[in-house]
Amino acid sequence: MELWYTENQTPAIRFSCKVNKTLHTAKTPYQEIAVLDTEPFGRMLVLDGMVQTCTEDEFVYHEMIVHVPLFTHPRPSDVLVVGGGDGGAIREILKHEPVEKAVLVEIDREVVECAKQYLPEIASGLNDPRVEVIIEDGIVYLQNNPGQFDVILVDSTEPVGPAVGLFTEDFYRLVYAALRPGGILVAQTESPFYNADILVKAYTGMKAVFPRVATYLANIPTYPSGLWSFTLAAKQDAPLPPSRQPAPDFASRYYTPELHSSCFVLPRFVKDMLEKAR
Amino acid sequence: MELWYTENQTPAIRFSCKVNKTLHTAKTPYQEIAVLDTEPFGRMLVLDGMVQTCTEDEFVYHEMIVHVPLFTHPRPSDVLVVGGGDGGAIREILKHEPVEKAVLVEIDREVVECAKQYLPEIASGLNDPRVEVIIEDGIVYLQNNPGQFDVILVDSTEPVGPAVGLFTEDFYRLVYAALRPGGILVAQTESPFYNADILVKAYTGMKAVFPRVATYLANIPTYPSGLWSFTLAAKQDAPLPPSRQPAPDFASRYYTPELHSSCFVLPRFVKDMLEKAR
Repeated sequence: MELWYTENQTPAIRFSCKVNKTLHTAKTPYQEIAVLDTEPFGRMLVLDGMVQTCTEDEFVYHEMIVHVPLFTHPRPSDVLVVGGGDGGAIREILKHEPVEKAVLVEIDREVVECAKQYLPEIASGLNDPRVEVIIEDGIVYLQNNPGQFDVILVDSTEPVGPAVGLFTEDFYRLVYAALRPGGILVAQTESPFYNADILVKAYTGMKAVFPRVATYLANIPTYPSGLWSFTLAAKQDAPLPPSRQPAPDFASRYYTPELHSSCFVLPRFVKDMLEKAR
Repeated sequence: MELWYTENQTPAIRFSCKVNKTLHTAKTPYQEIAVLDTEPFGRMLVLDGMVQTCTEDEFVYHEMIVHVPLFTHPRPSDVLVVGGGDGGAIREILKHEPVEKAVLVEIDREVVECAKQYLPEIASGLNDPRVEVIIEDGIVYLQNNPGQFDVILVDSTEPVGPAVGLFTEDFYRLVYAALRPGGILVAQTESPFYNADILVKAYTGMKAVFPRVATYLANIPTYPSGLWSFTLAAKQDAPLPPSRQPAPDFASRYYTPELHSSCFVLPRFVKDMLEKAR
């Protein structure tokens, strides 16, 4: 028997990969969870029929959502992750020496449990003493914790299901209020090829709230189109070069200091799409 | 009825897209050709079951295989394309004012005919008076035409079937001999994620022949992993900044002068893979 995972990336585009074994499936109050052992991408976490992370290529997403904002901020001591229950962002955050506290606010307890059990390489930081895991709606948490954080990462699913409220201008105002002066927001903002509307909506929503906003890109084979966007927003209206450099023993597989700058250089169609949206 | 095109990108990874209509299929002495009208990507040329080009995303591949080497060369008057029978590279080459002659050497006449009939936006430059289309094996053509070209583009299929000889050190020696002093070779060198072995072989093959070699990347949704590599090799051992800038009315959808530099900044795993191969 051959077992294949198939994802409808759009109504007219499908991505499939060979599966060795289904390790876990569950229906939570928030979503359908599956963990698959795939042949080409290692273990894969699937939420509501969309790949969230795989052990073979997760390094790209997690390094890029974390290291770009954290090396931009001169002293990120308190960092919040909204979503990101797999723990991959937390693992990368803990590589930054200035970090004293990393809070993960995940709405779905079962995502965290699932990651700890089936994706231990990704979830490895969740038991670190600097980390606090809170099971709560990120919106409620932000409302109750103004002015607490240097960097806030929105490591969410697509804006359907539980993440639908995380791509709105109202949400970005909450994030703004939860950041300290000089604080930085970063959010995953989908594929510029297949989800240009979502990227543009997120970008313009952030522009309405933050004085400085910039989109950057990374390559993730298991995500739709293979090209993924992140959008960074800063409370301070100043250029955003890296303010710190990785130590010589800093372990990365995707991020480099040179890439930190070049990932903001956008193909013309992406640049034009965002400029028109201003 | 629903019609879907499915490509086995690797034995364990499949890409599928919805098809409105099959426009053409043929078996030539070299390969199987199909032209599909797809829902998400427009018209698609498929050779031996692999997407070659689609009207919706071809701009990325054709701009990047052409503009990077042609803006690097100070005066590309004679340009050769090996393969590339769809004409997309020729169309972009003709945007460069210094170009006096562009030669296309394609082994399979039916690819050229097919593109002219079904992909007229891509093949649009093939009847330009500066263009010569030669139906011949690229290797034979190079053997017979030493020292003729400023830039040679290898716009080939994967190294299976007719393109198998185009990824070898012997082939790069032929290209070297066919270039004028200061000449530049560029070749498509597959996905760093799925075909790292091919990229490394091409890179080391070029390094054995040319004093300066550099790989750059672009994002193509219909190509395996979405991340594609090109490798540039120069007869002159000097840095490779762009030596010319696009005129203000230069039309592009992907290329920008800033991207010309940033596309050479590689993710660490790609950089490491190529450095180890030296």
